[in-house]
Parts: sequence; C-alpha cells; structure tokens
Amino acid sequence: MAPADPADAAYQGDPGAYSEQAAWALVGVDARLLPCRSLEAMFDAVAEGLARHAVLPIENTLAGTVPRAYELLLARGLLASAETRVRIDHVLVGRPGADKTAIRRVLSHPVALDQCRKFLAAHPRIEAVPVFDTAGAVSMALGSEPPDTAAIASRRAASLHGAAILDENIQDHDENWTRFLLLAPSRKIADADVRHAIAAFTLPHEPGALARVLQKVAARGANVTKIESRPIEGRPFEYAFLLEMRLDASRGDLRTLLDDLGPATGDLRVLGAY
Amino acid sequence: MAPADPADAAYQGDPGAYSEQAAWALVGVDARLLPCRSLEAMFDAVAEGLARHAVLPIENTLAGTVPRAYELLLARGLLASAETRVRIDHVLVGRPGADKTAIRRVLSHPVALDQCRKFLAAHPRIEAVPVFDTAGAVSMALGSEPPDTAAIASRRAASLHGAAILDENIQDHDENWTRFLLLAPSRKIADADVRHAIAAFTLPHEPGALARVLQKVAARGANVTKIESRPIEGRPFEYAFLLEMRLDASRGDLRTLLDDLGPATGDLRVLGAY
Repeated sequence: MAPADPADAAYQGDPGAYSEQAAWALVGVDARLLPCRSLEAMFDAVAEGLARHAVLPIENTLAGTVPRAYELLLARGLLASAETRVRIDHVLVGRPGADKTAIRRVLSHPVALDQCRKFLAAHPRIEAVPVFDTAGAVSMALGSEPPDTAAIASRRAASLHGAAILDENIQDHDENWTRFLLLAPSRKIADADVRHAIAAFTLPHEPGALARVLQKVAARGANVTKIESRPIEGRPFEYAFLLEMRLDASRGDLRTLLDDLGPATGDLRVLGAY
Repeated sequence: MAPADPADAAYQGDPGAYSEQAAWALVGVDARLLPCRSLEAMFDAVAEGLARHAVLPIENTLAGTVPRAYELLLARGLLASAETRVRIDHVLVGRPGADKTAIRRVLSHPVALDQCRKFLAAHPRIEAVPVFDTAGAVSMALGSEPPDTAAIASRRAASLHGAAILDENIQDHDENWTRFLLLAPSRKIADADVRHAIAAFTLPHEPGALARVLQKVAARGANVTKIESRPIEGRPFEYAFLLEMRLDASRGDLRTLLDDLGPATGDLRVLGAY
C-alpha cells in the first residue's frame, strides 16, 4: 500500500551526501527527500510508492561511468526525465579542535579516496579506509576512539555534523563533477520537446553493425554525447550498447529517430528523454 | 638503476589475488612475480625496471570497465601485448573450525562485495566491510578478535593462508570473469600479426564524427568488440574514445587501418596490439 504522502525524491546516502545536493537541484530546495542505504533501496522506494522520484549518480568526470547505475536503469524500468551536475569538492573533516598532524586514518567512499590520491600520497602516515558513503564517514570519524580519525566528505556533511574542516583543496583535480539523473516511473514522453535521449540496444556481432546505427543517428542531425558497450550479464564478453544523444529538433523528433534505429538494432529501449 | 634480475611481471594485490592467477596465465606458472600495493605502484615497478611486464585488470563481466585501468594505460605509455580472462569464483573464508552462523562481519574488496549482493541480503546479520584487496581481507579476517569475521576471496587465497572455506557459490552470477592485459614498455608492433587492437582518440563534437570513424573500421572488415567514450580530465563532459577491434587480416593490417583512421580522429594512439 502506497503511503498517503510520498517523498518528492529518494537519494542514496546520508544527509550531507552529494546526492542530496543533486536532489535539491532537480526537485527544488523545499523538496521532501528520502535518504536510502543503497541504490537498490532507492529504486525500491519508488516502486513501493514511498518516493515519486529517484536521483541516480550516473557518471563522474574523474571516475567515469557508475556501472551499477546503468544496470539498475536497464533492469528497473524507471525513465530519466532530467539531469544535473554537482561539483564534487572534498574536504578533510574531523572533530572540532582536532590537530590535522595527529590524524592517522581517513574514512571515505572508495571513489572519494581515489579522487584524493595525491593528498594521501603526500601524507603517508594517514591510512585510507574505505567505507560505504562520504556523509556516513563523517559520523564514524567523529565517534572514533582514539580521536585520530578523519573523513573525506563535502563541506555540507561537515557542517551538518558540527565537525571541523581540517584541510581543503584535497582532491587531485579541481574539475570534479558528478552527473545525476532524475528518474520516475512515467513512460509518457513528449517527443517534440526532447533534446537529450538515452537509449540502450544490442547489435549483431558483425563488422559495420554499429557504424550503420551511428549513420542513422547522424542523418537526423543528432550528436552522440556518450557511447558505451556494456557486458551482458550471463553472456561473458557479449555487449549491449548505451547511447546518449543531443537531438536536432529540426531534423525529426525522438519518435522519428527511434523508428530509424529500430530495424538496425535489437531490444531498443529508451532509458531517458528530456 | 635497474636491478640485475627484474621480476617477469608485477601485479596488484597480495599473493592469492585473482591478478596473480592472470599473471601465471600470461607469463607462465614458473614466472617470478612482484606483488604491488596499487595499480600505480605496478606501473612504477615497470618504469623503474623492477618488472618486465605489468598485469592490468581492465574489465569485469559484472562490474564493467575498470576506469582507473584505462586512465593509467592512456597516461603511462605501456603497450598491451596479450590478454587473458580469469574466472572469478568467490568463497567465504574464515578461521579453521569457525562456525558460519557465528559470522557477523565479512571483509572484501568493494567490487567483490558488490558481486555477492544476494548472499549478503540473505544474511542480514553479516555486515559487509570494504577493504582494499580480497587476498588481504583473508589475513585481516584470520587475525580479527572476536573471531566473528570472515572474508570474501578466492579459493587460492584461502588455501595460501591455511584458512577454511565456510561457504561457496556465494556470488550472484556464475559467469563472473575479469579480463587482464599484459603490458610492457616495448613499442615494436608486428602489424601483420595483430588480430586485436586497442586504440584511443578524440573527435570533434559534431554529428557524424563517430559514424565516419566506424565506417572506416567496417570498411577494413574489423569488428568493434568494445567502445567507450571517456571523460577527459580537466575538461568536464568532453570525451575521448576507446575502441577495441578484431581485425580481418585479409583486408589490411593494423598500419593500414591506422592510416585510414588518422585523418578522421585526433590524438590517435595504439594502447594494445596482439
């Protein structure tokens, strides 16, 4: 039974997570949000009517595609209707009054640790410990005994927990962004308004199969913004394709393009249209 | 100064890691191997003459591409000269005599934990704790107090440490394989013998640019086995392309194909040829 008043959006992580910032950007700063333990739990929350939307991290400029995100998008039947990009700005977070030089362990999500490799290499006495979530790392760090543990997380996660910022500019690259999709169960697509489409399909394993598909895309003036071949579960080293395109409305809407692609592809599906 | 007798291959992880199995498959079971703490350390070992080859995990059938592996391949100037696939077969590893029902924590690499999601969901009293490496998780689990901690790792990691296998068939999908590349500094490519090529390039952001490249690939009878657009560091949401191809020797060797692709691409580079 669906609750009377579902949240506006579910996101993965604790309050203070970068996903929470994405949710505000996508559904509004006054939105009612539902934090979830995992990406799966977030999809479940929408399926069970606990939330109207889900906010899915799909790609990071440094770490690349989030493979599990595309898997869930393919498997769970939600449709992306908008996207946003959140700047990732990691800081070193510790107890108020803590001495940075006394820190011996730093907790964070493995991807965040990976994005602060130069900082960690410059501080060989600090051991990096992976945990499931950046915001959760802050509360773990604040509660640790002895008080030699810090976290790598966002400024907001630090301020939410009343923690101190012990260091900043600790990530390897300043241009660190994550792209998030806003997902909902709806399948009604207003084709004429669509400027960006995300499609998935399979292809026969023969020379030229992908070239034929991309010629059809180009013939409609659409620009490929992302392409990826993905392993198919249970069929080792066979591939499905993911394609993101910016459409040129003057040369046909999404429906027209899909009609073109249909005969050249297998299992053609639209994962996002906005 | 290079040592008089470098190892045959460097790999990332502890003895018992899946990468060690890949190294044996690629350089022989009597090879002298150098375990490294990180992928970066492995590239460094080759650059410093400590090892002749590096063994790079590049892609898993369930988890997808290893983004950091492609980044290093692009950045560090080694060339792939062979590949192998290792079947990933995780088991639950604990102290000899341990009671599986008493286990409350399980340690493993985040990707391995992710591949055993159904097992973990079926055992809600077991907490999953990410650590850097599957084989390292085994020694950590054996040393933990109280003895309620297990690891998810390979059978070989269990047997190397004299540990017990508490459960098997714990991964979600039986068809779980990782592909590894054998890397070396050499740049001499015997074009005529090349059947598989890995190339990287950039493209102008205009409709049809990728279609033109793939038409040239198809015109030489080459079959695209993997394609991926990759973020370019410092240029958010601009993309370079990675392309793997199986060549048809009867319709031109690798040199011929590269000559075809050169004018249609930017920064064309060969990352692998075998």
